Amino acid sequence: MRLSKYIAPTLKEDPSDAVVSSHKLMVRAGLIRKESAGMYVYLPMGLRVLQKITNIIRQEMNKTGALEFLMPELTNAELWKESGRWAVMGPEMIRIKDRNGIEYSLAPTHEEAFTSVIRSLISSYRDLPINAYQINTKFRDEIRPRFGVIRSKEFIMKDAYSFDMDEQGLEESYQTMRKAYRNIFERCGLKTIPVEADSGSMGGSNSEEFMVASEVGEEFLLLCDSCEYRANQEKAEYKRDSKPAGENPNNLEIKDTPSVKSIEQLVSFFNKEASIFLKSIVYMADGKPVLAVVTGDREINEYKLKNILKAMNLELANDEQVEKATNAPVGFAGPIGLKGIKIICDTSIESLTNGITGANQTDKHYINVNPQRDFKADLYADISSAVEGDKCPKCGKPMYVKKGIEVGHIFKLGYKYSESMKVKVLDESGKEITPIMGCYGIGVNRTMAAIIEQNFDDRGIVWPASISPFDIHLVGLGKTEDEISKIDAVYDDLISNGYDVLYDDRNASPGFKFADADLMGIPLRVTIGKSFFQEGMIELKRRTEKDMLKCELDKLKDNIKDLLSLC
Amino acid sequence: MRLSKYIAPTLKEDPSDAVVSSHKLMVRAGLIRKESAGMYVYLPMGLRVLQKITNIIRQEMNKTGALEFLMPELTNAELWKESGRWAVMGPEMIRIKDRNGIEYSLAPTHEEAFTSVIRSLISSYRDLPINAYQINTKFRDEIRPRFGVIRSKEFIMKDAYSFDMDEQGLEESYQTMRKAYRNIFERCGLKTIPVEADSGSMGGSNSEEFMVASEVGEEFLLLCDSCEYRANQEKAEYKRDSKPAGENPNNLEIKDTPSVKSIEQLVSFFNKEASIFLKSIVYMADGKPVLAVVTGDREINEYKLKNILKAMNLELANDEQVEKATNAPVGFAGPIGLKGIKIICDTSIESLTNGITGANQTDKHYINVNPQRDFKADLYADISSAVEGDKCPKCGKPMYVKKGIEVGHIFKLGYKYSESMKVKVLDESGKEITPIMGCYGIGVNRTMAAIIEQNFDDRGIVWPASISPFDIHLVGLGKTEDEISKIDAVYDDLISNGYDVLYDDRNASPGFKFADADLMGIPLRVTIGKSFFQEGMIELKRRTEKDMLKCELDKLKDNIKDLLSLC
Repeated sequence: MRLSKYIAPTLKEDPSDAVVSSHKLMVRAGLIRKESAGMYVYLPMGLRVLQKITNIIRQEMNKTGALEFLMPELTNAELWKESGRWAVMGPEMIRIKDRNGIEYSLAPTHEEAFTSVIRSLISSYRDLPINAYQINTKFRDEIRPRFGVIRSKEFIMKDAYSFDMDEQGLEESYQTMRKAYRNIFERCGLKTIPVEADSGSMGGSNSEEFMVASEVGEEFLLLCDSCEYRANQEKAEYKRDSKPAGENPNNLEIKDTPSVKSIEQLVSFFNKEASIFLKSIVYMADGKPVLAVVTGDREINEYKLKNILKAMNLELANDEQVEKATNAPVGFAGPIGLKGIKIICDTSIESLTNGITGANQTDKHYINVNPQRDFKADLYADISSAVEGDKCPKCGKPMYVKKGIEVGHIFKLGYKYSESMKVKVLDESGKEITPIMGCYGIGVNRTMAAIIEQNFDDRGIVWPASISPFDIHLVGLGKTEDEISKIDAVYDDLISNGYDVLYDDRNASPGFKFADADLMGIPLRVTIGKSFFQEGMIELKRRTEKDMLKCELDKLKDNIKDLLSLC
Repeated sequence: MRLSKYIAPTLKEDPSDAVVSSHKLMVRAGLIRKESAGMYVYLPMGLRVLQKITNIIRQEMNKTGALEFLMPELTNAELWKESGRWAVMGPEMIRIKDRNGIEYSLAPTHEEAFTSVIRSLISSYRDLPINAYQINTKFRDEIRPRFGVIRSKEFIMKDAYSFDMDEQGLEESYQTMRKAYRNIFERCGLKTIPVEADSGSMGGSNSEEFMVASEVGEEFLLLCDSCEYRANQEKAEYKRDSKPAGENPNNLEIKDTPSVKSIEQLVSFFNKEASIFLKSIVYMADGKPVLAVVTGDREINEYKLKNILKAMNLELANDEQVEKATNAPVGFAGPIGLKGIKIICDTSIESLTNGITGANQTDKHYINVNPQRDFKADLYADISSAVEGDKCPKCGKPMYVKKGIEVGHIFKLGYKYSESMKVKVLDESGKEITPIMGCYGIGVNRTMAAIIEQNFDDRGIVWPASISPFDIHLVGLGKTEDEISKIDAVYDDLISNGYDVLYDDRNASPGFKFADADLMGIPLRVTIGKSFFQEGMIELKRRTEKDMLKCELDKLKDNIKDLLSLC
């Protein structure tokens, strides 16, 4: 491709609305342009990268025997109603009604659509297993789109759905996808950290996210280098410290705490460590109030809480709901004396001695709270989030936290959709059974951004060869017609040898062209200029290296082959 | 691909909602399934065809130097407001508002989106010409989706937009696309009829549609085989008969015509030919009333009328508007004595003698109307539709009508978008000019259906090789393990030689397998069964031929190569 005929508009300055490197570089290198908030146009070079990533995904999916489909992006509301999700999907899902009054989701995900079509196509155990996928546009009404294509309103996903006869079959499908995902990201030149993730009501190790460590990541990962435990904070467990030799329990007392509400205020008011407070928060779980209690130095982990409650929907109670549940305004909730509300305490509460908690009365707290003695929890369970320094649940060594961008997710769905949508096949004995499902997603645009987050320097992008928009960046520095026609001949020769070449044939200075080459980040730069016309030498330089290599024209293709094999 | 592991569910019966062959066959051969009205799921084999068509389009577009982009499917309303189309796009355009209150179109077309991004990327004549395209999903809120994927609510289009410095440049871009479209459809094995089409206010021969003749087509084409004039009815001209030796004009008279309104009623009431009536219809053109007059045997061509009026919007006046414009209820409009309304007559009206028309009074008509004498038309022009038997405007021979499916459209847009959206570049002398645009669309799904409409028989689809989902349909009729492993070996060998093979390895009868092979329509069937195990002969049969060829295993690949070259 001749740059003079191409559209790859580079910019010297970062776009003013970009805060992360991939966003800045995708705009500056001429890969994307913003159309409006959270909406991006892919320019030709950006689309080439997207297509290369897509091809790798398609190849690796097909290798596993998964079958490619294409679903409508508008999914009929009836399907969502069957699964029960029409009522519970949040405002991120865009809903429309056509002029015949039919309702659709502009789909953010396709569990229902795939379950519906596969249901109509299978009848026997012989038809299973199936892994059906698509690579298609999805939509999310992001209230705050950000980080360029990392969190946009419209994006391309590969989403796959497996259907198996039983849990063992699902485990095989899951492991096959696990391997395929490792291959996909490796082929894309992307180092990912697979972490255990929240798997909803399935529990166990049934969900894994593929994370790219990044300062701009919005997910928090708990990592242990001793035993390789890796988990998303949503899911991460941790070992509780063995309890200090307990004080003696004192008598429960009620204290005036005028306008002292937050843990910070309480810590300062009582001059005690945060860890002896019973932080008590009222939630609504599927419409019913629940009091969740953790120590004051911890945050409640809503994913864990939701799973334990097996709730479809969990949200913070509003002021009115809090007052109704505790007979006190917000800020004074506590587990003592409460009725008609489920009390779930973190395991660390169980052994607390002489704690402090809200008294369910305005401006009053209890001190010397001893849980076993003073109230009855419905359940003690792990409902708090692990943080930096917590002990690894496997080996006990301290874990550390990294931020990550999620690029892929594999997930054992279980029977959620196949049951609600009544998928049935006959097993070998002629008995009707419900298949078990898994789902497997990759964010394609986000993968592209994550690759850049991992591969850039102060001069620009450094593409891994496998997904680079071109193999070779040919910088032509001829001045006379004769010189230019010699470079044209090299270009034509490389093209006819099957190389994707971006040929900078513009009338511009060497410095300008080299700067653009560095910014665009194609792995191998080949320069034909003064050295060639004076001494017959062509210059080759890998984007990752400082040094360049010189060779004569008849050795050019051999050298290109060698150098590209290193990229 | 082993059919036992594939999803290509064939059906013996036509789906009950399908009326056209392509729709029936796409469902029966396992290419698509309906999700809901006007929404289709592409099953793996259907998607393969779609991808092959897409690849041909992409290759031919790239060959012309066109550059591939990818636009958001949600297009910001601001862009549509800039062009003025937000107000005039009809209810087919799906509009949504996100939760930040931003309005979007779920785009049915992308003139505005492309114009906006190209505008931001060009500044000089050196940046032109540009032809930018995408292959992307589009949406139309069809009130009555029909004919399977031919008229669906969600579909894939290739849409391209050219930007040139001047009309000559546009003409070159247009001709380049014209050639590319011929190549694309030819490579897809589709015979198209390029017809002149309505080109809006551009006029002239500036729009061409690529039509596939079909009984199920919704477009009417006027064709002349003597001179190859080919035009869509929207646009088709015709030669008027030379006038008969005129009667003498009689005196204008008014007649009572109680409850006689329609042309049919008038013909019977007066016992005269329809062609002497002045059929007069009130339209609203951009909010102003217009009376259009044609002879009673003709229909008003609203495309022609709209172009002549240079109207953005043209619609039939409602009853109230008719009464206001004519001072009479609907059914008695006529050009005599009207004020404050533009009168546009078809050219055939000009020479009418002693015609009959409504008198703008309830139950009254004028007879002996002589246009030049009795009223003043603002314009005589071609505003009626050509029909079967009309004389070709070029050679005067009678034309005939065929129905067609539109699969592609190339169109000189002119300055409509570049002017309203203020696209500017500097020309060689440093002067600001507005580029001139063209647009070029292909309906991808519709192309697939049209290929089937042209290529099927009573047993099923007959794919052209270039877009067939597979090259070879291998029918395995082994029974013993040994036999089956021999067929497996042939399959593996063909695959490793780069052929796309669909291998029917199911446990089913020969008749069942052959019927499926015929239905699926892959160009070459290779059967390994009894003849092979008994005599060493493999059977090869082209889908289009009755006869089969037999050969030994060592000649198989040569024969496949020869036969495929004929497909």
